[in-house]
Amino acid sequence: MSLINLLDYGSVLIFAITGALVASRAQLDLVGFAFIASLTALGGGTIRDLLLDRNPIFWIDNPTYLAVAGAAALAVFFSAHLLESRYRTLIWLDSFALAIAVAAGAAVAIGQDQTAVIVILMGMITGCMGGLMRDVVVGQVPLILKQGELYATAAFAGAAAAATGRHFGLDPLLSLSACALISWILRAGSLALGWHLPVYKSTPPKV
Amino acid sequence: MSLINLLDYGSVLIFAITGALVASRAQLDLVGFAFIASLTALGGGTIRDLLLDRNPIFWIDNPTYLAVAGAAALAVFFSAHLLESRYRTLIWLDSFALAIAVAAGAAVAIGQDQTAVIVILMGMITGCMGGLMRDVVVGQVPLILKQGELYATAAFAGAAAAATGRHFGLDPLLSLSACALISWILRAGSLALGWHLPVYKSTPPKV
Amino acid sequence: MSLINLLDYGSVLIFAITGALVASRAQLDLVGFAFIASLTALGGGTIRDLLLDRNPIFWIDNPTYLAVAGAAALAVFFSAHLLESRYRTLIWLDSFALAIAVAAGAAVAIGQDQTAVIVILMGMITGCMGGLMRDVVVGQVPLILKQGELYATAAFAGAAAAATGRHFGLDPLLSLSACALISWILRAGSLALGWHLPVYKSTPPKV
Repeated sequence: MSLINLLDYGSVLIFAITGALVASRAQLDLVGFAFIASLTALGGGTIRDLLLDRNPIFWIDNPTYLAVAGAAALAVFFSAHLLESRYRTLIWLDSFALAIAVAAGAAVAIGQDQTAVIVILMGMITGCMGGLMRDVVVGQVPLILKQGELYATAAFAGAAAAATGRHFGLDPLLSLSACALISWILRAGSLALGWHLPVYKSTPPKV
Repeated sequence: MSLINLLDYGSVLIFAITGALVASRAQLDLVGFAFIASLTALGGGTIRDLLLDRNPIFWIDNPTYLAVAGAAALAVFFSAHLLESRYRTLIWLDSFALAIAVAAGAAVAIGQDQTAVIVILMGMITGCMGGLMRDVVVGQVPLILKQGELYATAAFAGAAAAATGRHFGLDPLLSLSACALISWILRAGSLALGWHLPVYKSTPPKV
Repeated sequence: MSLINLLDYGSVLIFAITGALVASRAQLDLVGFAFIASLTALGGGTIRDLLLDRNPIFWIDNPTYLAVAGAAALAVFFSAHLLESRYRTLIWLDSFALAIAVAAGAAVAIGQDQTAVIVILMGMITGCMGGLMRDVVVGQVPLILKQGELYATAAFAGAAAAATGRHFGLDPLLSLSACALISWILRAGSLALGWHLPVYKSTPPKV
């Protein structure tokens, strides 16, 4: 199994769990769980593949991804009641899925010899779009729009690390690990410690 | 006219009417009606065609589909006030459109000799995505997320029937009819008689 | 630089500003500004390119578009507080972006020798979809659904002018200028003077 596959499986699994958790908050049935789980888990990579004109789409080429998403939906359906706080679980799992998916997206673009800008964007799109669709479909404020949290920024920094590593000829395993780690540390630091960039304030600065 | 075309026309017509009914609830003008009608009617099949890399997209290849959607929008614009309950009309028409569109999506995937899993998914995507986009754009809770109703499940069962029929070499007309019928019966039974699968409950089961 | 590029740059720049203004209302950080700005600015043209199977997508082919969107996000981040009314600025800039993007979308379809119907639709899709995604993602009522305003209608009229100009062999510069001008005049007249088409009323007409 190639590194790209491994990253894709990891992000599909974890994003599927977050999608199923959202489905549990909406009290859907098992097929509804699988639907939202698949949309979340496969959405970002699908958009990436459409934009890069990869054929076939990764989960049409290899339906194991669908099995992973379905299994995650099934597991959450029967176990989510064991969680103390589904929302906290959701945002923390989302942080892992984000980090891995950014690396998966960047890896595909690197494999296509795309420019650094496209590598960074494919990392961000793969990382952010599945969760964004999950949140929009169920009518919640997307995590990416939460004020004062690093989300798109975490994806950007990680993807930029992958592009930089490629530029300096680092081993892909190393630079993609750095990518995922940087994304996750920034996102986790934002969730746990309140790290953030200055946000826009409508009042004029004091100078 | 092939069977696939017939199914596509049927689902485009009925989904367009549901889109126009949603536009009437938002009190749009005639072009707004046509826009939402087209998004609803053509959305699911467009995503299917993009995912399967069909070129050109079905309504670019054959603009008659657009004419059908436009005519439906026009008809609803001048007649929706005759309906006693637009919402009831909408959800019942949506059930027919869902059933036919699932068959249309499955038929395309079968025509491409895709695996059973992809046949099922293309049925579900074609059936569910147009209505989902319609509901998300106007800011309503998508029908597919209504708690305790069969929707994704109805699409899944119908699409699975189509894949099963193909596996056993049934006549396509027969297996696609079974697909549409099963999807519709499950959805209609859910609407009229309250059929549903167990939904997720956050309280632990009693055993 | 070709005429199509010029139109694309213009619509990307102005739509990016509207996206960044929406991000300022949501009080995001700089990367969040760039994300929403890019989604808005590049979304419509991306859907157009996917539907027409153009490869590569325009901003993958030419990342200058991304630089334009990023620069717009940066400029808005540091200057939006100078505006008296961000919402008024947003809807007026959106009207310019709409008009230019309709011409850009129609131009691409004309360049592919598509039929008049597809030229009109690509104009409408390129003009309307970026702003629609911007509004849906942040959970606002899309401008295109505002009751009693011309929006889809303005895009339709402009795109129809471009298709008509092509039919009669007008110079592209002339017919695309007419396209943008007609779209903008209708949208601006709607905003400033209340121009509108009859909207659907649920009460029966008086005859």
